[in-house]
Amino acid sequence: MRNIKLTIQYDGSKYRGWQRLGDSDQSIQGKLENVLSKMTGEKVEIIGAGRTDAGVHAENQVANFKTKSNMTLLEILDYCYKYLPDDIVIKRAEEMDPLFHARYNAIEKIYKYRICNKRYHDVFDRKYSYHVNGKLDIKIMREAVKYFIGEHDFTSFTTMKSKKKSAVREIYCINIIKTEAGLDIIFRGNGFLYNMVRIITGTLIEIGLGNIPMESIPEIMYKRDRSLAGPTAPAQGLFLMELVY
Amino acid sequence: MRNIKLTIQYDGSKYRGWQRLGDSDQSIQGKLENVLSKMTGEKVEIIGAGRTDAGVHAENQVANFKTKSNMTLLEILDYCYKYLPDDIVIKRAEEMDPLFHARYNAIEKIYKYRICNKRYHDVFDRKYSYHVNGKLDIKIMREAVKYFIGEHDFTSFTTMKSKKKSAVREIYCINIIKTEAGLDIIFRGNGFLYNMVRIITGTLIEIGLGNIPMESIPEIMYKRDRSLAGPTAPAQGLFLMELVY
Repeated sequence: MRNIKLTIQYDGSKYRGWQRLGDSDQSIQGKLENVLSKMTGEKVEIIGAGRTDAGVHAENQVANFKTKSNMTLLEILDYCYKYLPDDIVIKRAEEMDPLFHARYNAIEKIYKYRICNKRYHDVFDRKYSYHVNGKLDIKIMREAVKYFIGEHDFTSFTTMKSKKKSAVREIYCINIIKTEAGLDIIFRGNGFLYNMVRIITGTLIEIGLGNIPMESIPEIMYKRDRSLAGPTAPAQGLFLMELVY
Repeated sequence: MRNIKLTIQYDGSKYRGWQRLGDSDQSIQGKLENVLSKMTGEKVEIIGAGRTDAGVHAENQVANFKTKSNMTLLEILDYCYKYLPDDIVIKRAEEMDPLFHARYNAIEKIYKYRICNKRYHDVFDRKYSYHVNGKLDIKIMREAVKYFIGEHDFTSFTTMKSKKKSAVREIYCINIIKTEAGLDIIFRGNGFLYNMVRIITGTLIEIGLGNIPMESIPEIMYKRDRSLAGPTAPAQGLFLMELVY
């Protein structure tokens, strides 16, 4: 069996998220599995590196699948390009070692959250950023970032369904970059819990607007209570940027 | 009467173009006139600088309208922002001399045509650029540009309805700029005929693909025959960028 790694770009606006749920076709995984199964004549299952939520986008999602097909990588790419909808594009295909696993082997995930911080939104970015009207204090947001860096229990910053699994994750770095429209927040870490990037972003926005004092973050974290953190920033601003192996 | 200049950004994807046709609401002008009329209680007519076609976008379209309203400029902007659809945003409003006319006073128009020149398109740009699969020879396209610069009869490069009006226009400059996705073509001129930017772009693409020799441009121009030029490049790649007064 060949083991093939795919790098995938998608506009998540129309989808229920990465993960296939039953026979639902409204997932990215479902769309990909359908095309790959049709292409190979096999029942293809793909393993995605990050299960992005409904509405979240990806620049470089990574997935792998096994197949006996002897198509070339370029033939696979061209076939998928032809049959996938125009909001999902496989950018690269690579032949991997049989043991390669897109999720387990990822040592780092990089997400970007895009914020438009002007009085009025930019029409061309309206589906690809979150419009915040009030003036954000970037300096304070940059300072607040330090409380999230490192290994922490992020229970207050997730809406996990299960309370049994560990909520300990390590964030390597959070960068806040000024853009023409506002700011981008780049998150690098070994993994992120359900909604974690969006809740940290929502909390950083509240800090930037002066609604939450940044000094309260350690206490919010310590109390392990989701209701104390800021709101979940909307999905449309979030991009899965890169997986590191 | 006050004379107010508006600078407008819009995503043209869903519209029949700038110009109001009868009572149709599917024009940008129609959407704006409806909101401004409701706001002022007057029957507002707005004059747009460039009548963009169906599907064409604008970064900075300019229009003006007359009103007796005593609302401040910021109140006008905020009102319009609230009631316009999210694909039309008025970026600026300015108080002008009573004689200012958005169309007649414009001395230069700047358009941009965005081309994605990769094997597969970029999903986030799919509505805001034209995807050309074959490799474009930018060097030859840049050389070919010289035939269009200056004052010419552009009959071969328009689908004008009337043959009576003059088809003479002056193009000041055409710049071809490499971008991450492919290339942008920037057009500066004193005015452009119906579909002119898109037909010149379609012709430049054919030249870049090696399908039309650039030396044939003077003859195509001389013969005043639309059928000799390249195809009309699709509307989705075109942006009205700026009006100069």
